[in-house]
This record gives sequence, C-alpha cells and structure tokens, in this order.
Amino acid sequence: MHQTITDLSKLQRRLDEVRNRTELICQPLEPEDTVVQPIIDVSPPKWHMAHTTWFFEEFVLKPYLSDYKVFHPNYSYLFNSYYNSVGNRVQRNARSTLTRPPLREVYSYRQHVNEHLQKLLATADETKLDQLLQVIELGLQHEQQHQELLLTDIKYILSTNPLLPAYSASDPPQTIATHVPATYVDVPGGIYKIGYQGNRFCFDNELGVHEVLLQDFQVMNRLVTNAEYLEFMEAGGYTDFRHWLDEGFTLATTENWKSPLYWITKDNKWQRFTLYGLQDINPEEPVTHISFYEANAYANWAGKRLLTEFEWEAAALVYPATANYSSDLIRLGPRAAEPEQHGLQQLYTDAWQWTYSAHHPYPGYAKAEGALGEYNGKFMINQMVLRGGSCATPPGHTRISYRNFFPADKRWQFTGIRLAQK
Amino acid sequence: MHQTITDLSKLQRRLDEVRNRTELICQPLEPEDTVVQPIIDVSPPKWHMAHTTWFFEEFVLKPYLSDYKVFHPNYSYLFNSYYNSVGNRVQRNARSTLTRPPLREVYSYRQHVNEHLQKLLATADETKLDQLLQVIELGLQHEQQHQELLLTDIKYILSTNPLLPAYSASDPPQTIATHVPATYVDVPGGIYKIGYQGNRFCFDNELGVHEVLLQDFQVMNRLVTNAEYLEFMEAGGYTDFRHWLDEGFTLATTENWKSPLYWITKDNKWQRFTLYGLQDINPEEPVTHISFYEANAYANWAGKRLLTEFEWEAAALVYPATANYSSDLIRLGPRAAEPEQHGLQQLYTDAWQWTYSAHHPYPGYAKAEGALGEYNGKFMINQMVLRGGSCATPPGHTRISYRNFFPADKRWQFTGIRLAQK
Amino acid sequence: MHQTITDLSKLQRRLDEVRNRTELICQPLEPEDTVVQPIIDVSPPKWHMAHTTWFFEEFVLKPYLSDYKVFHPNYSYLFNSYYNSVGNRVQRNARSTLTRPPLREVYSYRQHVNEHLQKLLATADETKLDQLLQVIELGLQHEQQHQELLLTDIKYILSTNPLLPAYSASDPPQTIATHVPATYVDVPGGIYKIGYQGNRFCFDNELGVHEVLLQDFQVMNRLVTNAEYLEFMEAGGYTDFRHWLDEGFTLATTENWKSPLYWITKDNKWQRFTLYGLQDINPEEPVTHISFYEANAYANWAGKRLLTEFEWEAAALVYPATANYSSDLIRLGPRAAEPEQHGLQQLYTDAWQWTYSAHHPYPGYAKAEGALGEYNGKFMINQMVLRGGSCATPPGHTRISYRNFFPADKRWQFTGIRLAQK
Amino acid sequence: MHQTITDLSKLQRRLDEVRNRTELICQPLEPEDTVVQPIIDVSPPKWHMAHTTWFFEEFVLKPYLSDYKVFHPNYSYLFNSYYNSVGNRVQRNARSTLTRPPLREVYSYRQHVNEHLQKLLATADETKLDQLLQVIELGLQHEQQHQELLLTDIKYILSTNPLLPAYSASDPPQTIATHVPATYVDVPGGIYKIGYQGNRFCFDNELGVHEVLLQDFQVMNRLVTNAEYLEFMEAGGYTDFRHWLDEGFTLATTENWKSPLYWITKDNKWQRFTLYGLQDINPEEPVTHISFYEANAYANWAGKRLLTEFEWEAAALVYPATANYSSDLIRLGPRAAEPEQHGLQQLYTDAWQWTYSAHHPYPGYAKAEGALGEYNGKFMINQMVLRGGSCATPPGHTRISYRNFFPADKRWQFTGIRLAQK
Repeated sequence: MHQTITDLSKLQRRLDEVRNRTELICQPLEPEDTVVQPIIDVSPPKWHMAHTTWFFEEFVLKPYLSDYKVFHPNYSYLFNSYYNSVGNRVQRNARSTLTRPPLREVYSYRQHVNEHLQKLLATADETKLDQLLQVIELGLQHEQQHQELLLTDIKYILSTNPLLPAYSASDPPQTIATHVPATYVDVPGGIYKIGYQGNRFCFDNELGVHEVLLQDFQVMNRLVTNAEYLEFMEAGGYTDFRHWLDEGFTLATTENWKSPLYWITKDNKWQRFTLYGLQDINPEEPVTHISFYEANAYANWAGKRLLTEFEWEAAALVYPATANYSSDLIRLGPRAAEPEQHGLQQLYTDAWQWTYSAHHPYPGYAKAEGALGEYNGKFMINQMVLRGGSCATPPGHTRISYRNFFPADKRWQFTGIRLAQK
Repeated sequence: MHQTITDLSKLQRRLDEVRNRTELICQPLEPEDTVVQPIIDVSPPKWHMAHTTWFFEEFVLKPYLSDYKVFHPNYSYLFNSYYNSVGNRVQRNARSTLTRPPLREVYSYRQHVNEHLQKLLATADETKLDQLLQVIELGLQHEQQHQELLLTDIKYILSTNPLLPAYSASDPPQTIATHVPATYVDVPGGIYKIGYQGNRFCFDNELGVHEVLLQDFQVMNRLVTNAEYLEFMEAGGYTDFRHWLDEGFTLATTENWKSPLYWITKDNKWQRFTLYGLQDINPEEPVTHISFYEANAYANWAGKRLLTEFEWEAAALVYPATANYSSDLIRLGPRAAEPEQHGLQQLYTDAWQWTYSAHHPYPGYAKAEGALGEYNGKFMINQMVLRGGSCATPPGHTRISYRNFFPADKRWQFTGIRLAQK
Repeated sequence: MHQTITDLSKLQRRLDEVRNRTELICQPLEPEDTVVQPIIDVSPPKWHMAHTTWFFEEFVLKPYLSDYKVFHPNYSYLFNSYYNSVGNRVQRNARSTLTRPPLREVYSYRQHVNEHLQKLLATADETKLDQLLQVIELGLQHEQQHQELLLTDIKYILSTNPLLPAYSASDPPQTIATHVPATYVDVPGGIYKIGYQGNRFCFDNELGVHEVLLQDFQVMNRLVTNAEYLEFMEAGGYTDFRHWLDEGFTLATTENWKSPLYWITKDNKWQRFTLYGLQDINPEEPVTHISFYEANAYANWAGKRLLTEFEWEAAALVYPATANYSSDLIRLGPRAAEPEQHGLQQLYTDAWQWTYSAHHPYPGYAKAEGALGEYNGKFMINQMVLRGGSCATPPGHTRISYRNFFPADKRWQFTGIRLAQK
Repeated sequence: MHQTITDLSKLQRRLDEVRNRTELICQPLEPEDTVVQPIIDVSPPKWHMAHTTWFFEEFVLKPYLSDYKVFHPNYSYLFNSYYNSVGNRVQRNARSTLTRPPLREVYSYRQHVNEHLQKLLATADETKLDQLLQVIELGLQHEQQHQELLLTDIKYILSTNPLLPAYSASDPPQTIATHVPATYVDVPGGIYKIGYQGNRFCFDNELGVHEVLLQDFQVMNRLVTNAEYLEFMEAGGYTDFRHWLDEGFTLATTENWKSPLYWITKDNKWQRFTLYGLQDINPEEPVTHISFYEANAYANWAGKRLLTEFEWEAAALVYPATANYSSDLIRLGPRAAEPEQHGLQQLYTDAWQWTYSAHHPYPGYAKAEGALGEYNGKFMINQMVLRGGSCATPPGHTRISYRNFFPADKRWQFTGIRLAQK
C-alpha cells in the first residue's frame, strides 16, 4: 500500500467520519445482537467494533504514540483476528464467548482510541508522518471492510432468529420496476495493464502491476436480475448436474439449496429476508447472496460464462461505470438497473461479481514486512476473486483494481452475477 | 405429582418468592451474557427466564384462565424446551439465535405472566382449584430446577470468557479449613421402601413406591474433598486405565482431562474458576464438577465404590442429614464439612452425589397424561441418578426421594462423590 | 469364572470342536469378505479368526507352555482387541487396514496355536492344571462369543454390498407358519436368588450372587413376531414420539428408521436381507435386529413393558424353556414358535431379549486380576442387558444367568422382544 | 480429445499392452489388498480394475458393438465412478463394500471385455471407425491414469498396515548419490502459445489453445531433493507460519505434519515407506508426497517461488527434457538427477510439479457432449494444476501440455517441487 497524503486536517475529518459510520451501522442493534456468532464466517458485531479499534491500537498507537497505555491488557488477545505475528488470540470460532466486555465498554474503548489517534495526529513527528499516515489509512480501509462485513453479518444474525426482525425501522425504498434488457458490449482483445497504477491507497494484492493478453469478448451491460435467476430455478437449474461444478452440485444437493440464501417460500410465493425484514422479490433487482457455484451454474445454463478478473478490469477500463450511484451513507440493498444507460451499470454499487479467477498473487507480488504482511497474502488459495463492489461497500471504498475474495461456497455477502460471452 | 394445598395466600406468596428468585439470580448479568450458548447443554439465561414463564403460560394460563391472550404468538415456538406434544420449537442447539426478544422484553413477559397468575389465583373456580394448584406447584418446582441450571449455566458461560469474569462482586465466604476425617457408618441390610411416600409434591419419577432388598453396607460420613481428589490426580489417576470404565477412559484421554472441570494450573498451582472468579483450591471443600466416570474411577482407586440410589435413600433414611445448612437465598459454592458431627453430612446442600444406578422407571411407573408426561419419563435411558442436592439447589427443593439424573460424562453441574464400602 | 473339569480328553475334543466351528462359519466366504469393516461395530471376519487365536496364545500358551515362541512378533499388536494391560494395539476403527496377513496365513496361525494347545494339554503340569483348564475354558467361551459376532458381522458385511449376496448357498428352511397366540404366564413375587450358582463356567459379570425382591408379574409365552411388529409399523409407531424414549426418537428420526435393520421395501412389499439373501418376511418368526429403543417403543405402543433382567431370570427359573431346539451346528435365522406348548418358548435359541436393566455390577462384583479383568467390568455403563440367546449363539453356550449387553442403539445382533405385564 | 489413427493393428497391440499392464501392476497383491479403501481418495485396486473395464463396456461396447450383452447387469451401478449421465452408482466412500464380485470374477470381466473389444475392432464399421478409435483411445488414456492411481493407492493401502509390507519383492535399485547442484536457467518473456497443438490424443482441458504473455523468469534445472527439503524441516519450516498459506498452516498444525507423507522417524533417523517397504531416505532423490501447501511453504522459505502452469509449459518448450528416462515398464520410485546435464531434468519421469495455477478452463474451453463431458470440466474449482509426470505415470502418457490436478492438501501422489525465480 502506498500513498501520499498532504492534508492532515482532511485525514482527521475522514477518521471521524469512518469511525462514526461503524457506530451508525450498529446503532439499531440490541446489546444481545452484538455478541452471537451463528456460523464461523459471521463475527459478532461487538467483536467487529472492538477489532477495528484494536487494529489502530496495535498498529498505530503502540508504535507511534509514545507513552501510550493500552486500554486493557487483554484486549489484544481478545480482538486480534488472525495476525500470528501479534501473538495468541481467541480462536475464530469462539468469538461468541466474549460476552464481556459488554457493548458499552467497547464504546468506551472506541472513544479512548479515537481520542488518542487525534492526539497523535495533532502531535505527530514530521519525520515519521508519511509512514504514520499510511498505516492510519490502512486502518481506515480495514475498518471500511469491516463495515461491509458488519452489514452482512448483522443480516445473517437476524435471519437466524425465528422472528425475522428487521434491522431497519423504515420501509424499503420504492424502486421502480422498469425492465432493462440485457445487452452485451464489446471489449477488444489486446494487452492490458492490470493492477493498481495510481498513487493513492491500494491493498497489496492489487500490486505486481503486469500486462495481460486478452482476446476479444463481450460483457453484459448490467447484473443478472432476480427474474432471470428465477427462470433458472424454475427450469430445474438446481437439480441438473450438467450445469454445475461437481463439488458445487454435491454441496447444493447435500444442503438442499433450492434458491439463493435468504429466499423462502411463503404461501407458494418466493420472498426473501432483507435488512428491512421479509420482503417480496423485486424481479428487476440484481440477484444477490449466491455462491460462485450458483453463479457459474447459472452462466452455464444461460449459455454464457463468467468473466476472468482480468477481463472484468479491462471491461471496466473501457466502459467506466454509469448510473446507480446513491448519496446514502448506508445502503441496505442493491438497486435495479436504470433504463436508457450506455456501457456498464452496477459495477461497484450493488453486488460483487464472481469472476472465474482464483485469488493468486500477481507476478512479482511481495507481502508487506511484519504483521501487516498477513493481510492478504496468506489467503491466496482456494478463494475466488470478486470484482466491483456492493450496496454494503462504503462509499469511496471501491476501485477498478480492487480484488475482493471469498471461497466458492460462501453466500452471505452481497454477491451477484455479470455474464460474458465470446 | 400429587399434593394437597389448602392455603391459597401461602401459594401466592410462594409464587412471588420463586419467581423473584430467578430474577435475583440474573441480576448481576449483562444483557450480552444472557444470550449465548457455548455448548448444547448450557442454555442462555434469557432463555431460562422466558422458558419458565412460558411453562406457566402454556400449562396454567392457557387452560385455566378464560380469555387469556398469550403475550406473543411466537413465544411458544421460541421457548418450548422439549414438549413434542405442544408443537414445533427452536432446536435445542439453536437457542443462541434468540437475540430477540431482548432481555428487557423477557422481563415484561415475566411480569405479564406473573400478573395473570395472580389474577387467576384470585378468581379461580373452586371446582378446578385442586388440579390448578398442582400444575402451579409443578411450574414452581420446574422453575426451581431451572434456577439451579441458571447458576451452573452462568458459571459455564463466564468460564469460557478469557477474562474469567466473576459472577459475584463479593469475596467468597471465608471457610475455616478444619479437616474432618472420613469415617464410614453402618446401614443395616433388609427391605426398604423406596420412593416418595408423602402427600406433598414430588416428580413422577419418584413414584412407583416399591420395596427393595439391600445387604448390609457402610457409607462415608461426608463428601470426598478436593484434597482427597488431588491425591488421586497426583497418583496418576487420570492415566491409569485400571480404575476406569472403558468409555470414560477413552473420553478422558481424548479430551485430555487432567482434573475436574474448571480447574487450571497457574504458576504451577491448581486454581479453579468459581462464581467468585478464579480462586485457590480449598482442600477441605467437597470436590465438584466431576463426571460419573471420574467419580467411579476415584472410588475404584480408593478401594471403595459408589452407592446405588437405593442404598443412598436407605442411608439417608437411617441417618437424617446433619449440619451444613445455610440461610442464604443464593449460595455460590459448596461448603466444607463441619467437625464433631455424627451421621451423614452434606447430603443435600453441597454437591449432588453420583450413584451407580441408571435413571430407569420404578416398578409400576406411569407417566402423566398429555404434555406433562414428557417431563421425566422420556429421559429414562443412558442417564445416571444423582441423589441429594447441591449448593445451587434452591432451599426447600430437595427431598430424600429426589432423583436427579445426567449422562455419565456431564461435569458442569455441582456433582461430587460419596463413597460406600461393604 | 470358576469350574472343575476332570476329563482332559473331553476338553481336547471340545477344543477341536469349538475351533473347527469357527472355520466352518468362515468357509463360505471369499478372502475379500474377510477384511472389510463397514462400521466400527463390525469386525473383519479374518480379524475374528486371528483374535480368538491370539487370545489363546496370549493367555494360555505364553504363560503356560514353556519355550513357546509366538507365531509372529507383531500379531499381539495386530490382534489384541481391547486389553490395555497387554499393550498397544491396532485401533478398533482401523481393523480393515489389516489386509495382511492374508487369510491363508491366518489359517496357518490358527493351526499353529491349535497344535501347541494340544501339546500343552498333553504335557501340562498337574499342579497348574486346574488354573490352566479354566483359562482354556475362558478361551473357548470367548471364541464362542466371537462365533456369534462372526455370523452377525458377516451378515452386516454382505448386506452393504449392492449385490446382496447370500452367505448360504442353500435355501432357507421351510417353516410352517402356524400362528401361536400370545399368552401371559404368571410369575409370583418374592425373593429370588440372582446370578450363577453352579460349579461350571460362567463369566465374571454373572457373579455377585444376590437376592432380589420382585413383585408378581406376567410374561409373554413367546417372542413378538414380525406380524405383530408390522402392526406397530403400520400404526405409525416410528413417527409417534409418545411411545419413545427421547434419544431413541431423535435417532430414529435422524437415521430415518422405518423398520428393523435389514428390512427393505421392494415392489411395495417388505422383504429382509438374511444369511440366505433377500427373503420375504415370515410373519410368524420373531422380529429381530431391533434396538432397545424400538423394543421399548413397541412395548409402550402395545400397552405392555419390557422385563428387568431380574424378572427375566426369575421367569426362566419358574418356566424352564420348552421347544425350539435345533440340532444344527450352525443356524442362520430364528424359528417361529411352536403350537401347543406350555410355559415359555424361544428363551435361548432365537433372539436375545432386551431387558430394561443396565449392565451394572452385581453387589460384591469383583473383576478378575490382570488383563482378564478387562473382560466385562469396564463395559458396565451405558449398555443394556440382553437375556437368553439367539439363533447365532453356539449350542451349549447359553445359561439362565448369562448377561449379554449392548448399547441401546445397536441393531446388528439378533435382538428381539419379550413383553411383560403386571 | 481429437486424433487421427490409421493403423488398426497398432491399436490392437496397444490395447493389449495397456490392459495387460494394469494386471501386471496388480499381480503382487493378495485378494484382500484389493478391496479396502482406507481414505476416500484411495480406491480399492479391484475397483480400479473393474472400473477401467466398465469404461470400455459403457462407452465403447454398448454403443458400438451391436448385440453386445453386458457381463453383469449391476456392474454399471457398481463400477461407474462419477458419471451422473450414466446413472446411479455406489457412492465414492462406499467402494470397500464391494467385497463381491471377488477378484477372480473381475479378471473374468476384464477378459470378457477385452475379447469383445478385439472383436469389435476386427469387425468395426468403416463409417464410425474414426469416432470409435477416438473413444477407445480415451479408454486407454483413462486406464493409464488409473494405472498411476493404482500404484499410489496400493502404496497408501500397504502403508496403513502396521506390518508395512513391501509391494515389490525385489530390492530397490541402487541409485548413485551424486549431488547435482541446483542452477537456474533463463526463460525469456514474450507471448507463448499454450495448450495442445498436435493432432494426436489430448484431454479436453488442454484445449482452448491460447496465447499468454509472460515476463522473463528463471527455472530450476532439477527437482528439489530430499536433502534440501530436510533442511527446511530442520530449520523449523513446519512451525513457522510466515512461510505458509493460512489454511495450509492450520492443516499442518491440526494434522501434526512434520514431514512429507510416508516419512517416519525410527531410531532418531528419518526413513520412509516406499513400494519396496521401509527404506532410508536417499538425500539426492527428489522429495515427493508433499501437498501444494508444503511445496509453496518450501519455496517461500527458500526465497523462491513456484511456477505458474504457463511458465512451466514455456520452460518445457524452451528446454526439452533431458535424461532420467527409464525403460522399465513399471517404476516404483523417482530417481535422482544426473550430473553433467544441461537444461531441465526430471520434467516428466519422477514427480509431478505443483504449479501456482488453479485448474480452470482455458479461454474457449468447451466440454464434450454427453457423459464424457464430465471427464475434466466439472473439476475446475479448488484444484491446483500439476505439470510434468511422475515415476508412476505410464511411459508414453505424458505431454508438455498435460494438466494434472489435485486439491492443495493431497499428498498421496508422487508430487514434488520445481522452483522459479524472477
């Protein structure tokens, strides 16, 4: 990660904004909601709030603020996620044991660290400033990643409750269900430069900028919709092995998947659990909460294919995103495509797009020194790259070179489908 | 269960007392403590509070209070424990999904049901009164059983937290460590009448009163102490298969048991987690939190044996309990034996005593009609009977004929050892 | 185990007969059949053949035959079953790793040990003879127990093969389907002496002879038939929780039990896999291959109950077995009851009878010294006693005081139901 | 797969040779060895022999030989591996249930199919000949793949036996332990054409020939040796998380990996189980039986990296293989590198080389129609590509474009390491 930041007061403001947004996300929760861990993938919201704070304490305050005293001697053990370099920690599957510290104490922890971060910024030594700003920026980007996880984890937690409580007290926005036809736009073959080439922040897995040779291909203008996915379901897509990768079909059969995650039939009609509670399916919204296996099976059924991550990046270079932006600080679901648009819609703002590329190192990739080297590099196996961004991604957090990644079976993120054809 | 209660106002007072004691037990908890379920045996405290309330709603208010409207239409689904007769329910291992209703709502539920119970008592139809009083008494006894579980479940929950938080803000009572020698008192052989023979409340598994022929035997005056159990540990008791039942030894080896539950070594010294937090071992207190396997291995190592439940009942008949009573409404740990006592100590007030008897029906046992017939009868396999009572048992809840039961591997209850010899 | 045997040549003949019978049982098998272990309960036939031989080598030849050299230095490691005292061994669930030694080598091992046993008997020192004869007798009884397991394990192994191959090349005996009505005969209450009181061989768990006080009861003249059990099935017995112990009902539901083990529906008709291959259900034969849970659920459904093991022994004392004997050396299935008989039929020769008694020690039970003390004592938990004997039990191996035992969920033995009523 | 074969008698000879080689591999086995399945990855040898025969019956004889009657109506159920298109089948983890048909019957099955294949070739219709020859060739290639699995599965099966029996009765070949220094040879960057470009047989996953742009890199002249790998082990490589991918480190820790598969310490010295039985480690032989995780950790520790599959193919194009060929029909282990060689050694003949490439489709990849389309395409997720070949690969079965693939955790194949550096 490399960057140049010159405006200190801008950073202070940004620090406030990002840290506050985390608390804004957690504001509708009961204390009881913040402590459970229904599956290993999902972390308790309280843990997210504390862990992102620990990240600043561990990597910013301890090394850079002289005489800093940690808020609590055991919190590093409690809230370290996976940094072996930092030491022992609560095992990932045991995060629900942390009923203490209670939520209100985690808020105190957040405030304590916030104050010391501001103090540090106010007094920081010029000579280390550049390095310090980079680590703070990493801390902010890290917290933004956890903001996305917070929304998806909260959704999962509430979905397991038989009462199906809504996260939001408001009604969902009324989207106008204009049908936008699927079209395919041309991306010319040739040599493309892949990876982050700017001079602001990026994650280490975007580096190792390198050239890739691509053939001509065509890419879908928008994401696959619920209505289109429902056709696949109704055509028996979940039970026809020919569309599926073998381990995906075995999983779907074993787990009795019949639909995306969160879809349920009620009175013979499909509904789905959302952050607004149980809602009817909006046919024109992009399908979300599907695994790579389902995305790939859908593509095969449709006679198309998924893109590679290199094709995705090339397409996004050729057709910068149009439409679908929103000014909301927190968005709780994807939006339908807009009519009368050219090029590519829904690139960054609705659902992550599964690519048929493994999360492997780019040529020349080198992980960072020390604990921060454990950020992405050690997860470069058995994970598929997702490109773009979703409704849950914080505004400003996306980039054309951004490489999100999850195992092929995961469904609790806002994941969707963009198709390609040759 | 059969009884005759004539004093209605006494029951109203008792209802208040029992229901209040549950809330008193939960008073030191954070809301976050009340929702987790670290192992399937342990239920969230919030669930206990709601389930005991549902029991009254389901079995008392719905059948006996005309026009009663349930507090919430889904609570029967949420808070039914295992009554198939009543309908579907949240699976036992999914109780931590119930982050909603929040704790404060469960308190409202309790109050709602309390008020209607009092209203019912004030207006109850004479003709059904006897039957009604019996079901209420069962509800109270049931709630008392959950009070014991609450204390042991809270202990387990807090023990999984790396901070090892104390339940009680106070210091543990200072027990005087007088050593009381183990002696064995004679119980003469003959025909004993076993089972509940009074005219107050008892559980159905105490019925089927019948005669049992016993041989002469001798029984230990007090419970086995921590100091005595430590000798077994230090003699290699946990690694010498000769003392163990085969499946116990396999379990102890697989789970790497080296001591009772909650014991840990710190600075080369044994300590144990208690409701007062981490404490030194008191050598004269009875050992607790051991499985039947450990109790039996200890007995074999000591050249003694466990009692059968019939021997236990006969011994308690011959030697009514002495000493060790306490006036505290809530007791958080067992107490050491008192010197200079005759007969049997620590029968009901410190640790349940594993017997070498399976929880099987007494001759002529018949389960109750309807849902309440699911209370004990369906658990009459692969469980061992424990007799007496423990520090966590509510005052007044024990009886000489009381049959507690748990699988042989369970350790999270206050379970201990009383030895016999022929 | 205690006995007095005076006739040495009779023992030599008996040794031949018992050892030969094991090989007779294995004669129809392919070498490939003798090595697999489809579930942990079932051992490879080759292993049984070697293990019973090892038992004689370890407990007879090594201690009693001077200069005896073991057949192979590793066989004790390979073929020790569960004797911790003897040392390390192949884990129970890994017996199918023993593709070597091949079957023909195991036959050589058997012959080697047989020859040395005869040599030992021919030359045995008078002073140790009594002790030696007792260990040999234990070895023979042990081998007979494995003969029963061989038949049931072979049945299980063949049943997992999709071709459903028959063990026997012959047709099943044509049983005449005379219906024998169920009647109940009286057993008077009183004090009964329980346990082995003779002066021949018995297992240690039959000792601790003691008196038991019983009430009057009545016992069924024969075993429950397939036709009767089918009524239970057709009445929805497997899905009505009210008849079941809770863990049995959970198991039956999880495992989707709809019938006894080995029953399958073909062309809408029930058939069952037998050692003669797939056969129609004979309605008058006793039902077999049911768990304790099913036996108990059936009894509840029928408004009866199972016997305790003490009641069983008392009943068998009062009504010695009639009919149902067979002169066949190896019997492959149970036989229907015979008409016009008085008293109790099918006590020892058709199906083991689940009792509602746990396999616990009798008063004063003491296990043997050394390794042989691991024979029964360490299995005295979470197992239910079965009384009588089955078609697979070797002739002459049964006794009125014999205590067989299995966990409540096991179904691969020839286990059946005899009912009681008070 | 596409090819042109003109010489029919050559194919008949080849058919004989390939089919015979399978039986030659199984010749040293006992019938008992051929039926077990110690882990799900390993299939019983008898199953391999029958399955490869079924493949010809299903895909050649049934469609092409008129009036062909299958050898046994159930064998398709028994010996289909994973072709959903063909119908139901024995589950993969249940192959050890197939104790029947016995081995001798499987030999009859092989002969029956062989005879009919020759008959078919002798009488085949000209018009379908080209298509027929292609399917037969696929059957032969398929059988060759199973020959490699036979050797590795037999090795695994024998390794689980406590006697550690040798597969081969001979002594291992005496390899001269000349140390060959590791050097790195240059491969120039540029555009390479990847995939099978010939006109003989290839698998479908080699197609979709396409151009790939590579940077300059350097590749190791030989494979990593046991001696070099031992340095990694002795440097604590297995316990230093910094070298490892996260899930690899978790696996190695959980499974307590300390060395490659089959290595054991005896008398404080490393030995390893081979097809010749337990042998000393030959320091100059290539290390084998390691997972992708270990290969990658080793590379990181050594300050190098693995190649991508495209780099491997480019390197093999630039430096065709030298040395290390053998004329043996069956080879049981890898050989040490030869001194004084230029370019790349041990490409195809000693150990498969893990690449840091996922087994994904090439651009334009299309699976075959019908059942044969299930050959490779459905396994294109969560598997890593291995390039080259191993000692167990049948002579003539390798190609520069060959893409072998296994999940990253598998170790029972002859898998090794070739390093790259930029």
